[in-house]
Amino acid sequence: MPSISQKGLSMPESPIRKLVPYAEAAKERGIGVIHLNIGQPDIKTPKIALDAVKNIDLEVLAYSRTEGSEVYRQKIAKYYAKNDIEVNASQIIVTTGGSEALAFAISSIADIGDEIIIPEPFYANYNGFATAAGVKVVPVVSHIENNFALPPIEEFEKLISPRTRAILICNPGNPTGYLYSREEIKKLADIVKKHDLFLVADEVYREFTYDGMEHYSVLKEAGLEEHAILIDSVSKRYSMCGARIGYLVSKNKEVIKTALKFAQARLSPPTYAQIASEAALDTPQSYFDAVKVEYVSRRDLLIAELIKIDGIKVAKPQGAFYCIVELPIKNADTFAQWLLESFNVNGETVMVAPAGGFYATEGLGVNQIRIAYVLEKEDLKKAVYILGEALKAYKD
Amino acid sequence: MPSISQKGLSMPESPIRKLVPYAEAAKERGIGVIHLNIGQPDIKTPKIALDAVKNIDLEVLAYSRTEGSEVYRQKIAKYYAKNDIEVNASQIIVTTGGSEALAFAISSIADIGDEIIIPEPFYANYNGFATAAGVKVVPVVSHIENNFALPPIEEFEKLISPRTRAILICNPGNPTGYLYSREEIKKLADIVKKHDLFLVADEVYREFTYDGMEHYSVLKEAGLEEHAILIDSVSKRYSMCGARIGYLVSKNKEVIKTALKFAQARLSPPTYAQIASEAALDTPQSYFDAVKVEYVSRRDLLIAELIKIDGIKVAKPQGAFYCIVELPIKNADTFAQWLLESFNVNGETVMVAPAGGFYATEGLGVNQIRIAYVLEKEDLKKAVYILGEALKAYKD
Ligand SMILES: Cc1ncc(COP(=O)(O)O)c(C=O)c1O
Ligand SMILES: Cc1ncc(COP(=O)(O)O)c(C=O)c1O
Repeated sequence: MPSISQKGLSMPESPIRKLVPYAEAAKERGIGVIHLNIGQPDIKTPKIALDAVKNIDLEVLAYSRTEGSEVYRQKIAKYYAKNDIEVNASQIIVTTGGSEALAFAISSIADIGDEIIIPEPFYANYNGFATAAGVKVVPVVSHIENNFALPPIEEFEKLISPRTRAILICNPGNPTGYLYSREEIKKLADIVKKHDLFLVADEVYREFTYDGMEHYSVLKEAGLEEHAILIDSVSKRYSMCGARIGYLVSKNKEVIKTALKFAQARLSPPTYAQIASEAALDTPQSYFDAVKVEYVSRRDLLIAELIKIDGIKVAKPQGAFYCIVELPIKNADTFAQWLLESFNVNGETVMVAPAGGFYATEGLGVNQIRIAYVLEKEDLKKAVYILGEALKAYKD
Repeated sequence: MPSISQKGLSMPESPIRKLVPYAEAAKERGIGVIHLNIGQPDIKTPKIALDAVKNIDLEVLAYSRTEGSEVYRQKIAKYYAKNDIEVNASQIIVTTGGSEALAFAISSIADIGDEIIIPEPFYANYNGFATAAGVKVVPVVSHIENNFALPPIEEFEKLISPRTRAILICNPGNPTGYLYSREEIKKLADIVKKHDLFLVADEVYREFTYDGMEHYSVLKEAGLEEHAILIDSVSKRYSMCGARIGYLVSKNKEVIKTALKFAQARLSPPTYAQIASEAALDTPQSYFDAVKVEYVSRRDLLIAELIKIDGIKVAKPQGAFYCIVELPIKNADTFAQWLLESFNVNGETVMVAPAGGFYATEGLGVNQIRIAYVLEKEDLKKAVYILGEALKAYKD
C-alpha cells in the first residue's frame, strides 16, 4: 500500500472535530447539546444578497475571472474607501473565502522552511495553511491577564531569524476578541519595516468592534504599502459563511502578481457566491448596527454570567464574537469530552472548544476554552449555567 | 521591500493568459476574435440545477460540512453506481472544483521534492498545483502520431525513482482528447502496484466519449483499491464551471482521512454550488445524449475542415472537447500572437492556445496548438477557415 505524505501526516486536525463523535453520541442518547464551540453565526444573511441569487437569470453558470469580476472589485474598493482604506480594484483578488486568501498569501511570501511569527492563541487553521505550504509557525505568547494584548515588541524581535518572512495578526482576534490599537499596529509597522518583513493582517472581523472602539487597518498605515497584506472575507460580515468569498488585498504589486498565479491554477472563485457577495455590499448600515447591538448584549450577558462562576478568568472581548475562558481545571480536552459523555442538567449539556488547539506552544491554554457567542441570549445564559454546574460536579 | 517566495516566482503563468492583452488590443481595434483557446463550454447548464438555487429558501447562508453534506455524497455514490463504479459516501470528499481535489490529492501523497509522473502534453494547471506543493512533475512523452496513446510502459518504468509517489493521468485527456483503453489502464494498474505508487486519474471528462467508446475508470479496476484516487468535477459534465464543485474519491482510507485534514483547514465547499450540483445529478439522460451529439458533430466538422489545410497534423479526439493540432510553422507562441496582432479575414481573427504550455519538456509542442471545440459549428468552421488563410499568409 503506497504511503501518505509526511506533510499530510503532520497536518493538524481541527481542534473541534475530535469532540464531534462525542456530541453525536450525546444527541443519540437524547441529550440536548448547546454549541458554544462554533463560529457559525445565527444572524440572518442580508436579504439583498440572497435575493440577488434568486433573481439572477443565467443560461450558463460559467467560470468568472480568476481575480473576480472588474465591477465587483471596483465595488469592493468603494467599500474600503468608506472604511477609510484607499485601494483600487487592481490591488484586490477575490478568493474562495478568507481561507484561500490566507493560503495564497503564505505561499506567495514564504518558502518551505521559512517562518511566520504569529501571536498565540490564534485561529487554528493558520497552522493548517502553514503546514500545507511547508512553512513554520513561530508563536509569540499573548496572555489572558491583559486580554491578549500585543506582546511586547521585544518578544517579536527575539524570534526574528533569517528565515522569518512575515508577522501574521488577526484583528480583531479569533479566538481572543482582542482589538489591536493604532499604537500596537504602528509598533508592528516599525518592526516589519526594520526587518523587511511582510505584515499579514486577517481583518475578517473588522466590523465587529465594540464599546466605541475603532478598527485600525494595516492598510491605513502610511509607509506600509509594500509590507501589508490584508485578508478579508464576507463570511462573518454578512453572515454568509457558505458563500466562500474572501479577498486578498495588497498595494505590493509583486504580491498581487504572485498570488494571481496561484489563483490562476484554481481557475476562479465561485460564481453564485460572487453574485451574492456583490449584492451584499449594498446592505444598509442599519443591518450592521443591529448586529452590533446584538453581539454587544450577548457579550455583556456572557461575561456577566461567566464571572459569577468561581475560579474562572475571562478576557473581555472588544471585537469579533469569541472569548477565551480559563477554567479551574487541569485539562480542557478531558473536561469538554466529559461534558458530552457524562454530564447534563435536565437533559442538556454544552459543547466547548478546548483552547489548546489555538496555541502552537505545547502545554499552553490547556485549561482554557473558547466560547463563540453566536447564540441567542437565552441559550447563552443557559449554557453558562450548565458550565457552572459542571465545574461544581467535575473532578480532575 | 520584502521579497516574494521562490515558490511564487516559479509558479507557472497560465499559457493562455499571456495572449489576453493582445486579444484585448485586437478587440479595441474593432477586430472580432473567435476564441478557440478556452474550455468554457457554451452548452446550457441543466435548468434543474439553476432552478434549485432559484427555489431554495435560506435565512442564513451557512458553512456546509467540510466533506460535503451526507445526502449529497450519497447521491454522488449513486451517480457512480450508475456508471458501474462502486463507492460509498465516506469515500467521497466534495471539493471546490476538481482543481481543489487535485491540490488535496497531491499534498496528501507527495512531499516536497517528491515526483509525480504525468504523460505530456497535460492539463497545464497540474504544473501549478505541483509547484504550489513543492512537488516535481516528471513528464513521459506521448505523441501526436498515435493520437497521444499511453506511452510504452517501459518509458514510465525508466522514470520511476525512489521519490516517485504517483502516476497522474487525465482520461479522457485535456488537451489530447485521447481516451485510455481498458488495457492501458490495466498496464498502469500493474506498474503502480509493482512500485507501490498511487494512480491519480482526472476523469472530469468521463461522459465525453465518442464513437461508441466506453470510459474505463481507475475505480473499476480490481486490486487498485489502495492505489486509485479519482478526481472529478461538475464543471464540464453539467456545463456549470462557475459552480466550483468537484470530488476527490478513493477507497484508500488513509487518503480520505488525510485529504479531509486539508479540507478542514479551508472549512467547506461553496453552499449554493452544492445545491445546484446536487440537483444537477437528476439531469435527464436526454441532456447528455444531446450534448454528446453536438460535440461529436463539432469534432467531425473541426477535423474535416482542419485536414483540408496543407501541412497540418491532427490527433482525432475520442473524448473531451479539445484537440491538438500540429502546424507547419516554427513557433506557435509567435504565430498565436501574430494572429491577434497582424492578421484578420474581413475583420475577424482567431485566438488559439499554443501547446508548449501543456508540455513539461522544454521545446516539445512548440509548433502545436490546442483547439477547444466549445463553439457552434458555424463559428468553428469560420475559425478554421481563418486559420488556414493565416497559415498561407504567415512567414516565420
Ligand atoms: C480569523 C479567521 N480568519 C479566517 C477565517 C476563514 O473564513 P472564511 O474562509 O469563511 O472566509 C475565519 C473563519 O472562521 C476566521 O475566524
Ligand atoms: C483536465 C482538467 N482537470 C481539472 C480541471 C479543473 O476544473 P474545475 O476546477 O473547474 O473542476 C479542468 C478544467 O478545465 C480540466 O480540464
